[in-house]
Amino acid sequence: MLKLDATDPRFDADFTRLVNARREADADVARDVRTIVAAVRDEGDAALAAYTKRLDGHDLHESGWRIEPAACRTAWEELEPALRDALQLAADRIAAFHAKQVPADRDETDAAGVRMGARWRPVDAAGIYVPGGRAAYPSSVLMNALPAKAAGVERLVMVTPTPGGEVNPLVLAAAHLAGVDEMWRIGGAQAIAALAYGTERIRPVDVVTGPGNAWVAEAKRQLYGVVGIDMVAGPSEIVVVADGRNDPDWIAADLLSQSEHDPTSQSILFTDDAAFADAVAATVDQQIGTLATATVARAAWDTNGAVVVVETLDDAVPLIDRLAPEHLELACDGPLADALFAAVRHAGSVFLGRHTPEAVGDYVAGPNHVLPTGRRARFASGLSVLDFMKRTSFLACDPGALAAIGPAAVALAEAEGLPAHARSVALRLGR
Amino acid sequence: MLKLDATDPRFDADFTRLVNARREADADVARDVRTIVAAVRDEGDAALAAYTKRLDGHDLHESGWRIEPAACRTAWEELEPALRDALQLAADRIAAFHAKQVPADRDETDAAGVRMGARWRPVDAAGIYVPGGRAAYPSSVLMNALPAKAAGVERLVMVTPTPGGEVNPLVLAAAHLAGVDEMWRIGGAQAIAALAYGTERIRPVDVVTGPGNAWVAEAKRQLYGVVGIDMVAGPSEIVVVADGRNDPDWIAADLLSQSEHDPTSQSILFTDDAAFADAVAATVDQQIGTLATATVARAAWDTNGAVVVVETLDDAVPLIDRLAPEHLELACDGPLADALFAAVRHAGSVFLGRHTPEAVGDYVAGPNHVLPTGRRARFASGLSVLDFMKRTSFLACDPGALAAIGPAAVALAEAEGLPAHARSVALRLGR
Repeated sequence: MLKLDATDPRFDADFTRLVNARREADADVARDVRTIVAAVRDEGDAALAAYTKRLDGHDLHESGWRIEPAACRTAWEELEPALRDALQLAADRIAAFHAKQVPADRDETDAAGVRMGARWRPVDAAGIYVPGGRAAYPSSVLMNALPAKAAGVERLVMVTPTPGGEVNPLVLAAAHLAGVDEMWRIGGAQAIAALAYGTERIRPVDVVTGPGNAWVAEAKRQLYGVVGIDMVAGPSEIVVVADGRNDPDWIAADLLSQSEHDPTSQSILFTDDAAFADAVAATVDQQIGTLATATVARAAWDTNGAVVVVETLDDAVPLIDRLAPEHLELACDGPLADALFAAVRHAGSVFLGRHTPEAVGDYVAGPNHVLPTGRRARFASGLSVLDFMKRTSFLACDPGALAAIGPAAVALAEAEGLPAHARSVALRLGR
Repeated sequence: MLKLDATDPRFDADFTRLVNARREADADVARDVRTIVAAVRDEGDAALAAYTKRLDGHDLHESGWRIEPAACRTAWEELEPALRDALQLAADRIAAFHAKQVPADRDETDAAGVRMGARWRPVDAAGIYVPGGRAAYPSSVLMNALPAKAAGVERLVMVTPTPGGEVNPLVLAAAHLAGVDEMWRIGGAQAIAALAYGTERIRPVDVVTGPGNAWVAEAKRQLYGVVGIDMVAGPSEIVVVADGRNDPDWIAADLLSQSEHDPTSQSILFTDDAAFADAVAATVDQQIGTLATATVARAAWDTNGAVVVVETLDDAVPLIDRLAPEHLELACDGPLADALFAAVRHAGSVFLGRHTPEAVGDYVAGPNHVLPTGRRARFASGLSVLDFMKRTSFLACDPGALAAIGPAAVALAEAEGLPAHARSVALRLGR
């Protein structure tokens, strides 16, 4: 864990190093992924079966390529009732929040008589990636599937690796609840390639979303343009801004809730109270020992954790903007939290006040938990209904409208040296 | 030019070949671009100067790195008045259309007392690419710069190659009109890399948009994630649907207005009238000879043009959806055009009726002319204000709201094996 003090003369250099620290895929991953993607494109199901055998340790021809809807329904029905209620509450709230994201169409006619507008439609088919192993999260199924459903996507496909052939019943239950139409037991870069190009068994989709490891993220990046993707996702991260009036136990738990995700996760505390900073650091060390996720959390905190003491919390704002964090928790009184939020330019999602731990947003609040990482909140947004829709603009001129604006188009087309453009307008103007 | 008849038994196979025809960058381009991008990332301005010398034939240290705002103002003032008026009309209409795209923020509190919402902000800096040479279009400057301005972007940077050191006064005038803040005489993949990574002279930007050749498009694809990009753009394309009551001259000009862009451009006519199809094909051949762009237009039409005769115009709809064209012109009476538009699922921009040539949308109508190509209208949208903004979601719970939804979060976190997540909520519930 890195301790920084904003009054230290070396602070600028140290903080810049923190901002620029790379925790993401290297060139080797990109090369491996290119090989896998080309194999799936050229060899289809045969490549999928070979990679699944090698990487997930099971033979798709024996374990089965698909996960059947009946298996998902059974998983849902056999779920412990308290957990079923929790998933249902989460699904209802997520669906309600995302339903309001569906954009309105536009259809206007202006003073010149030109009719124009924009029409939104869902993509025909979407694929969602659900990790297996350490990160097999039913919450991610809901967060990816429900925006697609709210968009009106007719064919919703889920891919998930089943290492050793094992499936996660919670993931199946969530897929049932979310209304996933089609499920395949494949993962990694090979699953992304299958969704993008299609294979003998799997029809291609138009958009692929969902979290994954470095290979999955790199495959999405490489296949962007063949399909739409949500975002290039990197390791998770949180910035917590807390004054000295917080309970160190609460803030330590908040920091660890990111650290426990993955050894590459990053948790950073900004505080204006040096004694509080020390108390939180000590509490983090105590809490780690009690976690079932201690090994991962300790690795992440030791390597990527940071505690930054600033003179005033306002001083944290420009530093936060340089980090553009995925999650930003503003653990202070409401009015100050609102003021800090108004001042911050770049963050994926913001959690306001002392009673809004980031984890409540991971599960049940409503907004999406798929968010831009690695400083990408400078330009990117969390997953939404818009990722599963596309806009078609349209235009209609009658002769009067074309007479009003057409001559300018002719002049510009001629100036650009495009005579057929000019002629297509001029002919209709009777020239 | 390919002639197809939907009643022909080989039609399905032939049309599938047309849909799958690749007109885009190959592996060699990707390899070259990786080399250029790495050089600019590692060597900055030195690499920029070397590539500009080699590819654009001028020495940046002599010709100057920047284009000065004063040069743009002069270009604007010296413009022929009719052209200045045309550019001003275009700018006013484009600005008005895009201003209405700025999304509204959300801030709601639900029945459980949970406050949540979304806040939109512009990116800090955007870079727009403006091609030199054949495709140096002032209209593209307006179409890229004005949405960024409408979004509220504070630093708008333009890069444009100036082969042999020559600048295009129309492009400079449009940059002045659009309010571009900063201009650099660089182009190609090296310019995209400079915008993404920054160099000694050029500060990095957050989003890069704008058309370009295969190297530019591939550089944007490779740098997606380092910066935001608008879209992976390929060769331009138009589908025209026309009944036999159109003037073949008008429709031929519409088809050629795409063909004259580039030898890789594609123009396709669907009609239900075989005699009209022949008349248009003959007229295209006549018109090509009269164009200053004849060489390009002929190459594009001969290689990528197609005329498809269908039994009814309704039959064209599923074929159009497979092509998902960038531009779709529905040249028939208004009610039929509206009905066809309602039936089509995938198109970048649609032009309704007999008096709406696509070219009027290229210049002055208002909607953007930067549109998804290469079947990407299945999942992608034209350039808009949203490409220059990002959304931050937010959440605020008071103790009562957390008591209502927190227990479900604890249950799900425990089920997912994430104890620090559970603890961060449970502590605040007094557990």
